[in-house]
Amino acid sequence: MRRIAIAWTLGALASSLGATSAPAGDDIVLRGMGSFHIGGRIVEVAGKPTREIQRVPGGPMSKLDPNGQFMVEQMYVEYFLPRNRKGKYPLLMWHGGGLTGVTYQTTPDGREGWMNLFIRKGWDTYVSDAVERGRSGFASPDVWPGEPIFLNYQDPYERFRIGQGAGSWDADPAKRKPMPGTQFPLDAYDNYMKQSVPRWLSTDKAIVDAYLALVDKICPCVLLTHSQGGSFGFLVAEQRPDKIMAIVAVESASAGRIANAPKLKDIPVMMLFGDYVDQHPRWAAYKKIDREYAEAIRAAGGSVDLVSLPDIGIKGNSHMLMQEKNNAESADVIQKWLVAKGMAE
Amino acid sequence: MRRIAIAWTLGALASSLGATSAPAGDDIVLRGMGSFHIGGRIVEVAGKPTREIQRVPGGPMSKLDPNGQFMVEQMYVEYFLPRNRKGKYPLLMWHGGGLTGVTYQTTPDGREGWMNLFIRKGWDTYVSDAVERGRSGFASPDVWPGEPIFLNYQDPYERFRIGQGAGSWDADPAKRKPMPGTQFPLDAYDNYMKQSVPRWLSTDKAIVDAYLALVDKICPCVLLTHSQGGSFGFLVAEQRPDKIMAIVAVESASAGRIANAPKLKDIPVMMLFGDYVDQHPRWAAYKKIDREYAEAIRAAGGSVDLVSLPDIGIKGNSHMLMQEKNNAESADVIQKWLVAKGMAE
Repeated sequence: MRRIAIAWTLGALASSLGATSAPAGDDIVLRGMGSFHIGGRIVEVAGKPTREIQRVPGGPMSKLDPNGQFMVEQMYVEYFLPRNRKGKYPLLMWHGGGLTGVTYQTTPDGREGWMNLFIRKGWDTYVSDAVERGRSGFASPDVWPGEPIFLNYQDPYERFRIGQGAGSWDADPAKRKPMPGTQFPLDAYDNYMKQSVPRWLSTDKAIVDAYLALVDKICPCVLLTHSQGGSFGFLVAEQRPDKIMAIVAVESASAGRIANAPKLKDIPVMMLFGDYVDQHPRWAAYKKIDREYAEAIRAAGGSVDLVSLPDIGIKGNSHMLMQEKNNAESADVIQKWLVAKGMAE
Repeated sequence: MRRIAIAWTLGALASSLGATSAPAGDDIVLRGMGSFHIGGRIVEVAGKPTREIQRVPGGPMSKLDPNGQFMVEQMYVEYFLPRNRKGKYPLLMWHGGGLTGVTYQTTPDGREGWMNLFIRKGWDTYVSDAVERGRSGFASPDVWPGEPIFLNYQDPYERFRIGQGAGSWDADPAKRKPMPGTQFPLDAYDNYMKQSVPRWLSTDKAIVDAYLALVDKICPCVLLTHSQGGSFGFLVAEQRPDKIMAIVAVESASAGRIANAPKLKDIPVMMLFGDYVDQHPRWAAYKKIDREYAEAIRAAGGSVDLVSLPDIGIKGNSHMLMQEKNNAESADVIQKWLVAKGMAE
């Protein structure tokens, strides 16, 4: 199977340098854009004491009642519809853990993110913030158990293969040990950390439910997922196999339920990985989970292309590859695959 | 002074029905769009125990260290730059309490929000999520004191003049008592509640600091603020009077520091109010604060137009007027004022 993936990618790469994307600087022409929230449920909270609060300094006091009906577990979705549509289906971009749709919007060094690049390639593009991230809001401790987790500066640097693993971080930028040849814009690491948002460890079901609601509204569609979003994408595809026309899972962590993998037999899947994966225990473990899920899809007659960017000559990418210096090149690898699978002109 | 405002608005209204905005359905042509985070600071947390967590079901265990450096109090900003630019300066849209930039993006009933409408009018438009709202993320209890507040279904309905004040809410939609003639899309109240996000009561300084950083990056500019954002807009204008070319404060709650109001003497200000304000104690109180601030600006030789929409024949608007059925009409009132003040063609 690895042979098949490489054969495809080398062939695709040979013809991939033709300009499939309009360069930044050209106008983006949209026949529509907007946002909506989807999913969610109303919960009742009762028995908590009310209190008087001053909502703005100098303003009047007013009652805050923690009881009553609350909307929770809704999801925010932003969409852009290019005039020159070339994608056969909408493209849904689902981000990873501790992040939001901003993952796809921009890069830490301020260039265009995959969102713009795929809009320029002609995709109707839907970027969401998973439940409890970003503009989706989050529920009170009265509704959700546990507390959110917060990532310090060191955590993604060492865990996302920007630095050389444990011990590579230092508060002094000059003393950090980045991966040799990294594509990550190291000088903009602060900006990457600004994109980070807290997340809960207890909300997976709510997240999947909202994604299901989105799929029921928008699809048939193509999923482009990253990291934690990859697991959600596979779990949703298992439940809506007729609605998902293709999946591009970028460094999925982890996969779906292996027993349900056969449900994806009619969905072409690309699993895309950056560099340094095999030498990092954490990512090697996720890749093994992904590979086993891929094997289970293939055993049912399905098709999975597992593509490691360094195997096709694209080196230096961390876990955040859509935000790195060569993000236009990695976007082109995905676009070529989608075209090959009949998803776009 | 009320006379002046009415004279202006009646004159403007007479010529306001010419199409200054392209209709929804026409293409939106952008010479650029993207997002960034700005502001923020690095804090150190120390002395907390680490723990092992499973970040995704079935994945490997990994260390979560609540100590170290954390990025906090950054702000998310999304921008859209129309090809056919007519606004002389960038237009910055600052939302109200417990909400995000989504306030301007869409309406509960799924029509175009003021963001699209003002982009169509030719404004370079920057929509932000205040610190600790939406895509700006929020800091841990180790960094910020206190807990966020959450709004139940009843709270905005009764407090934002959608319903007829206290007691007008009912869990059964058929039993609710909306304001007579309300412009709010009542059937879509669920969607409005989905836009709601928690907020803290202790973060005003951090919010203003991030807005100052944004102004220092983007301005000279025009501010369009709503509710709690109005107070932040005035506080920022007091500190950067040379950078703010005009302010449109929609139902500001509350205003700036009265002692600093003279600093706004060279900034044309519009204070815009919806319907039912004077009969609602809460909003009457805010309007009084705004009016006193306006008087202080005028006493220093400045210019403030205080416009009540019902006084110019536009009735039925709640506190969320940019999201209501007639949001294109209220946007046109603002646009006419901005043109009259030389801010746009």
